[in-house]
Amino acid sequence: MGQQTTQGTVEAGFESVREEFAAVTAAEDDDYAAQLTVYHHGRQVVDLWTGPGFSGDSLTGVYSCSKGAAYLVTALLVQDGTLDLEQRVSHYWPEFGAAGKQHLTVRELLAHRAGVVGATEGFSVDELADDRVVAERIAPQLPFWRPGTAFGYHALVIGALIGEVVLRLTGRSIQQHFEERVRAPYGLDFYLGLPPEQESRFLTTLPMRPTPEEQAQVDAEDPAGPYSLLNIAFNQQRPDAPAVETLPNHRVVRAKGPASVGGVASARGLARMYAAAISGTDGLPPLLTPETAAVFGQIQSVGLNLVTGNPSTYAVGFSAVADLYPALGAGAIGHPGADGSQSFADPSSGLAYGYSRRRFAFPGGPAAENGRLVRAAHAAATLAG
Amino acid sequence: MGQQTTQGTVEAGFESVREEFAAVTAAEDDDYAAQLTVYHHGRQVVDLWTGPGFSGDSLTGVYSCSKGAAYLVTALLVQDGTLDLEQRVSHYWPEFGAAGKQHLTVRELLAHRAGVVGATEGFSVDELADDRVVAERIAPQLPFWRPGTAFGYHALVIGALIGEVVLRLTGRSIQQHFEERVRAPYGLDFYLGLPPEQESRFLTTLPMRPTPEEQAQVDAEDPAGPYSLLNIAFNQQRPDAPAVETLPNHRVVRAKGPASVGGVASARGLARMYAAAISGTDGLPPLLTPETAAVFGQIQSVGLNLVTGNPSTYAVGFSAVADLYPALGAGAIGHPGADGSQSFADPSSGLAYGYSRRRFAFPGGPAAENGRLVRAAHAAATLAG
Amino acid sequence: MGQQTTQGTVEAGFESVREEFAAVTAAEDDDYAAQLTVYHHGRQVVDLWTGPGFSGDSLTGVYSCSKGAAYLVTALLVQDGTLDLEQRVSHYWPEFGAAGKQHLTVRELLAHRAGVVGATEGFSVDELADDRVVAERIAPQLPFWRPGTAFGYHALVIGALIGEVVLRLTGRSIQQHFEERVRAPYGLDFYLGLPPEQESRFLTTLPMRPTPEEQAQVDAEDPAGPYSLLNIAFNQQRPDAPAVETLPNHRVVRAKGPASVGGVASARGLARMYAAAISGTDGLPPLLTPETAAVFGQIQSVGLNLVTGNPSTYAVGFSAVADLYPALGAGAIGHPGADGSQSFADPSSGLAYGYSRRRFAFPGGPAAENGRLVRAAHAAATLAG
Repeated sequence: MGQQTTQGTVEAGFESVREEFAAVTAAEDDDYAAQLTVYHHGRQVVDLWTGPGFSGDSLTGVYSCSKGAAYLVTALLVQDGTLDLEQRVSHYWPEFGAAGKQHLTVRELLAHRAGVVGATEGFSVDELADDRVVAERIAPQLPFWRPGTAFGYHALVIGALIGEVVLRLTGRSIQQHFEERVRAPYGLDFYLGLPPEQESRFLTTLPMRPTPEEQAQVDAEDPAGPYSLLNIAFNQQRPDAPAVETLPNHRVVRAKGPASVGGVASARGLARMYAAAISGTDGLPPLLTPETAAVFGQIQSVGLNLVTGNPSTYAVGFSAVADLYPALGAGAIGHPGADGSQSFADPSSGLAYGYSRRRFAFPGGPAAENGRLVRAAHAAATLAG
Repeated sequence: MGQQTTQGTVEAGFESVREEFAAVTAAEDDDYAAQLTVYHHGRQVVDLWTGPGFSGDSLTGVYSCSKGAAYLVTALLVQDGTLDLEQRVSHYWPEFGAAGKQHLTVRELLAHRAGVVGATEGFSVDELADDRVVAERIAPQLPFWRPGTAFGYHALVIGALIGEVVLRLTGRSIQQHFEERVRAPYGLDFYLGLPPEQESRFLTTLPMRPTPEEQAQVDAEDPAGPYSLLNIAFNQQRPDAPAVETLPNHRVVRAKGPASVGGVASARGLARMYAAAISGTDGLPPLLTPETAAVFGQIQSVGLNLVTGNPSTYAVGFSAVADLYPALGAGAIGHPGADGSQSFADPSSGLAYGYSRRRFAFPGGPAAENGRLVRAAHAAATLAG
Repeated sequence: MGQQTTQGTVEAGFESVREEFAAVTAAEDDDYAAQLTVYHHGRQVVDLWTGPGFSGDSLTGVYSCSKGAAYLVTALLVQDGTLDLEQRVSHYWPEFGAAGKQHLTVRELLAHRAGVVGATEGFSVDELADDRVVAERIAPQLPFWRPGTAFGYHALVIGALIGEVVLRLTGRSIQQHFEERVRAPYGLDFYLGLPPEQESRFLTTLPMRPTPEEQAQVDAEDPAGPYSLLNIAFNQQRPDAPAVETLPNHRVVRAKGPASVGGVASARGLARMYAAAISGTDGLPPLLTPETAAVFGQIQSVGLNLVTGNPSTYAVGFSAVADLYPALGAGAIGHPGADGSQSFADPSSGLAYGYSRRRFAFPGGPAAENGRLVRAAHAAATLAG
């Protein structure tokens, strides 16, 4: 069991979140390393970390939490009046209009309804690092399902697809927009494309380490075949395919910061981005108006996720995280990462949340401890008013 | 265990329903009070009640069974050719066409697809009592989900929304139509707006009384937050919000009879309304043609109910009750109430059913005993031919 | 436990499939009789059978595996450019455009979205044998659900409905197309309309024989009523309705070969048809281009099947069988039969599979042993490359 000290600070009224974080730590292994940061109405109220060699300044790959950055840029362009969610993707990007996808709207693309979840023949690491290569490969594809009638997680490609729309429309990449409009002005520790000078703070993600019971559970399942939707979406068609958990451990991925899974951040960076989005931070105004936040928090897809095989709820790109954390309001928007990380904003309570961990949690996706931590943070925020 | 006598009468061939009702009573607490009335091809064949201070003439709030009355009026207007299900709501009610709802049809509204399930800031009891106030507050709202792509129970507002359509179109409220075309001519003990002279028969609803095991089950769940879809839809955002179970206990609610939850009836009234709808009663013709009944029994929404979090099946407004009671035919239409009441018509067997109870059943919604009672009634009707 | 010998042959590399088939046999009753044939890249690699009086040449009713033949004909007509999936059914067949079905496309019809799953008043055996009679009865019906918004298995009528489209468009029945373009040229032991001279090879299907535990499980369920969607779709409205399991035991059904359930085949016939579809056999080219196979393998309907009450996934007519057998690729297409039979092609692995059994398996639909057999066949094919 974890013997590490919980480090960092909490504001008055949020002591219970520190206690919960310490309780999570105590239940984990000795090498558990994690960060938790929470903002309330734009003010940092929780900033905790634990684990050997880990600090509040440590950076790790945050996997699909990266998507939140891409969707925030998208929301800004919609708010500007530059991008129209009702417009067809093929209007901005003609090559995408092939094989029955000509009527698909930007809104449907963001809701994971396009049905082009991966490339049957697979991608190399270098290809996955480059959003333009991914977009070019996906554009001509026949969807695996009828566009608009179902949905499934476009795990490694959605960032490239919305990125291509943004690039065609504005002449600039999502990564550039994020750096200029979001990361730099708000001082976020969250990079889509990690500069060399920040490399020293980066720590590689450690592989999942199932318990014998967890491994037995995996072994008892009928495994998905190489050309299942699951393995196409996660690019696991071949025995030598790059494991998802290693992706940001490759410098080429970190350096280019593909918008689906290439982001590098601390929990501080995750939480501060969502605080900047709905509340503003340190005197800077919120990035999104309440109207834009509500538009992007509107539920678009609900039911069986054809890729993961689990029930899911997507807003406009963002995960509708209230389906995981019942305490949150109907318009809460965020995104988890495969490593176990989680990040969101809850306009109804003014909370912004970032959680990151160094070792992949079993069985992948938002780690179970987020349930306890979110509940504690929401309860404290409710008392704080 | 309940020691009360089962009172009332059953026709020859329906003795088994009386036995089932007595068995239900025996399994309940001593203060269990309930009514059960069944019609078969327009003739009353079961009329039973039990419980201290309760009689077949007693009236209670029937909560969402009220919606059945509103949908029956709607069906009559469609049957007349006055109202068009395919028309957009905003055609009849321009203010509703705001915030992305301009294309929503009357059919989709009735299928709980509009996505405007409540008011974020909440309603007072006086506001909930007045369908026009509710409609005015809901009209400008951004839907919580993309209209038409998902559905969820518009628990306290659907009656006001279809009511506003009816009022704008005909100049008369749903309550007026119901009184003039349905309640008065068919002599129903079912009021949307209880007249003062009937007040003496009204008994307040008693609060839910979970067993320790049931309470433990509730306590073990991660509770929904104040701005969850569930609590917005049931108007429970604030600690001082009016509890749903108390609504018809307020005279202002009973007096105005809001179409979502404000109805007051006996089981006789519930069953007789549905008998009048599909079979006619006492020499009066059926209100609906078989064609209209089939149109309103057509399934419109199926899957995860975004408000309740449970699977649901809606026809045109009405609940497609065969999903709860497998013995019923595909076109059966009805509606349960939060207190545990249930009411429906099953055209395939000629059954019309009303059940009401004084104390809220755990955990809310159609009480479990309806399963036994419906099965018994359907079996007896099948033998009766 | 089954003591029969496994007969037949497997190619080198597929011995494990023989072992699995023998293990299945050992776990069944003494009168278990079944056939299993597998093709790999157009070459027969597994051809096994077991059971008293059964051989590889035996023919049985294959129930809904028949639909695969109908869909293959449909795919050929789309590939030819003769039939347009996006066209409205009523364009080809005006009478179908009644009661709200005028906009339904051929694609939606094939995806079980039409909502006309049966005739409320029921069909006789003679009527079910004749696709034109079934089509004429269904055409004017009001759908049980809003066309396009939900789906459910059109168990006994889908073949007649697409058959009528084919007949109106081409002047020839699906049965004629199948015989001329598929069965005869590829030498398939799979008939939609069994010629008298093949009758001697036909063996009637034996009724389901639940264990006491299985029967208790059935008895514990609240049974579906006669006018439930389930019983309308399976034509079980009346106590004297013809049992589904007896349908191909009637000569009139076998002789006419209605496309929904009237096919007669061996496992060899089933597997060879799917091999012919995607790979070709014995020097003959594949019937379908990879593009056509992908178009027909695209998922169209996913979620709750309103008829069976179970989750289902339909491609364009075909079952998207990867939802049952995770090892298969995303574009695998096939169809099971109510008796327990199964049949499919998996383009990603080059597998074509046919399994047939003489006695209905509990509880109906694809028999559980297919899970083991498919896994073994896929594993062997993967090693074979």
